[in-house]
Amino acid sequence: MSTLLFPLREKPPRPSAPPDIRKVRIGLLGAGGVGQAFLQLCRREREFFLRRGLDLQPVSALVRDTSRPRQGMPPPALLTADPLRFLKCSCDVVVEALGGVEPSRTLVAHCLKARIPVVTANKSLVAAHGAELSALAQAHGTRLRVEAAAVAGVPFIGNLEARPLAGRFSALQGVLNGTSNYLLTRLSEGQGLEPALSEAQELGVAEPDPSNDLSGRDSAEKLALLLQRLCSRQVDTAALEVQPLANLQPMDLQAARLLGGVVRPAACAWLSEPPSPCNHRAEAIQAFVGPCYVPNGHPLAQVHGLENGLLLLKDAPHGQTAANLFYQGPGAGCEVTAATLLDDLWESVQDASDSRPASQFPAPQGPPATLQAPRTPWFLRLKADPAELDDILAFLADHGLHGRGSHAAADTVWLLTSRASRARVEAVGQALAEAAQSDILPLRALEVPHGC
Amino acid sequence: MSTLLFPLREKPPRPSAPPDIRKVRIGLLGAGGVGQAFLQLCRREREFFLRRGLDLQPVSALVRDTSRPRQGMPPPALLTADPLRFLKCSCDVVVEALGGVEPSRTLVAHCLKARIPVVTANKSLVAAHGAELSALAQAHGTRLRVEAAAVAGVPFIGNLEARPLAGRFSALQGVLNGTSNYLLTRLSEGQGLEPALSEAQELGVAEPDPSNDLSGRDSAEKLALLLQRLCSRQVDTAALEVQPLANLQPMDLQAARLLGGVVRPAACAWLSEPPSPCNHRAEAIQAFVGPCYVPNGHPLAQVHGLENGLLLLKDAPHGQTAANLFYQGPGAGCEVTAATLLDDLWESVQDASDSRPASQFPAPQGPPATLQAPRTPWFLRLKADPAELDDILAFLADHGLHGRGSHAAADTVWLLTSRASRARVEAVGQALAEAAQSDILPLRALEVPHGC
Repeated sequence: MSTLLFPLREKPPRPSAPPDIRKVRIGLLGAGGVGQAFLQLCRREREFFLRRGLDLQPVSALVRDTSRPRQGMPPPALLTADPLRFLKCSCDVVVEALGGVEPSRTLVAHCLKARIPVVTANKSLVAAHGAELSALAQAHGTRLRVEAAAVAGVPFIGNLEARPLAGRFSALQGVLNGTSNYLLTRLSEGQGLEPALSEAQELGVAEPDPSNDLSGRDSAEKLALLLQRLCSRQVDTAALEVQPLANLQPMDLQAARLLGGVVRPAACAWLSEPPSPCNHRAEAIQAFVGPCYVPNGHPLAQVHGLENGLLLLKDAPHGQTAANLFYQGPGAGCEVTAATLLDDLWESVQDASDSRPASQFPAPQGPPATLQAPRTPWFLRLKADPAELDDILAFLADHGLHGRGSHAAADTVWLLTSRASRARVEAVGQALAEAAQSDILPLRALEVPHGC
Repeated sequence: MSTLLFPLREKPPRPSAPPDIRKVRIGLLGAGGVGQAFLQLCRREREFFLRRGLDLQPVSALVRDTSRPRQGMPPPALLTADPLRFLKCSCDVVVEALGGVEPSRTLVAHCLKARIPVVTANKSLVAAHGAELSALAQAHGTRLRVEAAAVAGVPFIGNLEARPLAGRFSALQGVLNGTSNYLLTRLSEGQGLEPALSEAQELGVAEPDPSNDLSGRDSAEKLALLLQRLCSRQVDTAALEVQPLANLQPMDLQAARLLGGVVRPAACAWLSEPPSPCNHRAEAIQAFVGPCYVPNGHPLAQVHGLENGLLLLKDAPHGQTAANLFYQGPGAGCEVTAATLLDDLWESVQDASDSRPASQFPAPQGPPATLQAPRTPWFLRLKADPAELDDILAFLADHGLHGRGSHAAADTVWLLTSRASRARVEAVGQALAEAAQSDILPLRALEVPHGC
């Protein structure tokens, strides 16, 4: 065939570039667990990156207290508690692992204004100020990468930002907090919440102060981050329905198993319409965060222990089959987070000389999206005599809540119900408490999505 | 804090570019199912891409026979059977959906030499000639994208190529062929292979000629593609251990279920050491393709019907926990493949003006990797009297194959065994046939990986 092809103008091969080693001066904001793991990783993978033409050179690390004992990893000369001194060090890229909103926000903003790309593992910062910082980065021709801030072990955020059709979905359902998933996994094995938490802290898989994990706040911030980066939607985490892990007992997890499911710390959002870059109206988003009954056929049921998982539900237009995407992998841990930060750093350095758009999804503008509580099935625990189950079911049905399955033991009954709003479930719970002195614990339940 | 920051030289925001609409002239190689779906998608998503600054303009489609009836989608003026005429149309990007090796290889090579980026859904082409074509693309400063050629509905190949640490793994285990997974799912529901195949053909989820799916060749080519793109390893698919679906019966799937697992069309490879761009030696790769027992705790057990799944197993160096990655989503289908081609096209167009390296993994060089058959557990079906189970187990144990579970029905026994090589299992099968006139069907079995 090649004789046929003469009209195609063949261009000469480009001369291959010599394998220059490029020095990358790295500024590190924070040298706690993640920051130290990052420095260790830079040292361990030094040769690996040199072979790829990159000489990783940490030049400065801003910490709150330079005298705090650290495992010998950051050379003392690297450390400074003085933001001024940190910012005077010329950096090619900044890794933000301080956590919290300030001073991260101010420091990151200054770096971006100086056209220094920033990679961050800080979900609180991105959930609250990611939109303004991304807009700032874009205005100054640089970029804020956040892959390490949610489902840290699975790279997908930057990829979906770069692929318009794959990045289009109608709902997301995730297990975004490894610590609380670990605790619920231990509960399902019969362990109580308090001893499971102590054990997790000993193993280093729960923070000394685990309140952000237990309260659901960590998951809520990650959900806000994902909606911001993948759908151009800003949500106010304070307005989200967020339920804590508290009050769950091993027998709840056993009942869930007998009803064909598990309990997972879920973070879910349904979009009223597919996101679009030209669609900045604050459409209502239905969302919740909290422990949730997940039937065994649902992909999130397979996400055990410290793992994270994320299901992106896609509408099936034009009679096509649904094309859901599911990601599963380690959710956090200092080493995993550090590796993702270093991959983000690598991508930032590749970007430096090009003009790729930051994302197909522009930073959200305007007021936060309106949040609504979704109608879902429910998994209810009731203090009640199992002999009264029929009466209870009739009572619930009278209030529009239909039983779909039940399990009873001693003085407790667990029910799976039809879909209802939280308001309805709470009203029914109130009525039941008045009618039968019964105490009710309502957890939301997911359904096996179409196409799974 | 901002008063502290005066020494940081703040650079003025870059003026934001006007929203120019850029015309992209698309050449399409092939207008079969995928090609037609691609053209339909371009038309359906025209406004969506215009809002992102891209005017999709299919300008020519090379087909084998212009007179073949098509669903009215490609305007006849677009079609040509003349490669010369096709190549005369100036294209900005070429979408290859011809399938097969020639003339795809020649045409794609000519486009790449003319610095036209190519996106392809053609696993046969990439498995056999991807290395040479990628090297050609790199030499000419352009790129061959292959996201649509394996696990088409889940974007991960390009992403792992761009992320050095996430892209480092020690083994991969996949369900890469949706058609055969659909057939095995139907078998597990009691359907026979022949009727399941007819049904699949009626539903359009199996080709009129399904031999590449049933034989395992399609999976083998996809495995070769993944090893090439993600590990810089070339494998000769003819040298792979590939087993067909044939001979499986619904009762095998029922036995698997009773033994706590399922049967999946697997494609697996274990690397003897982590891939490295400076490591072009042809280390042995242990690999197999074929129907395989998968225990329920393994992520691939959850990959039903037409879905695909891919587990990347990561070593856990330095006492860290394993950080396996798992992807699940639609494996194929014309619409899914077309959407992935269009996302690849979008990425190709973004690339045009930049100098991002094609991949962290250079195209494989030198001879193909040496392939070895791995030692795995086995799922054996034996024609035998269940009363003789103890004798059979003793016989197998004498030959170094230890039973780990069994199920018996009528004149058949199913066994799960300890790890062994295929050679050993076949020798034992031979000995058993001679000693007891028993007939043996050996399927490989996977184990639940560490960290799952």
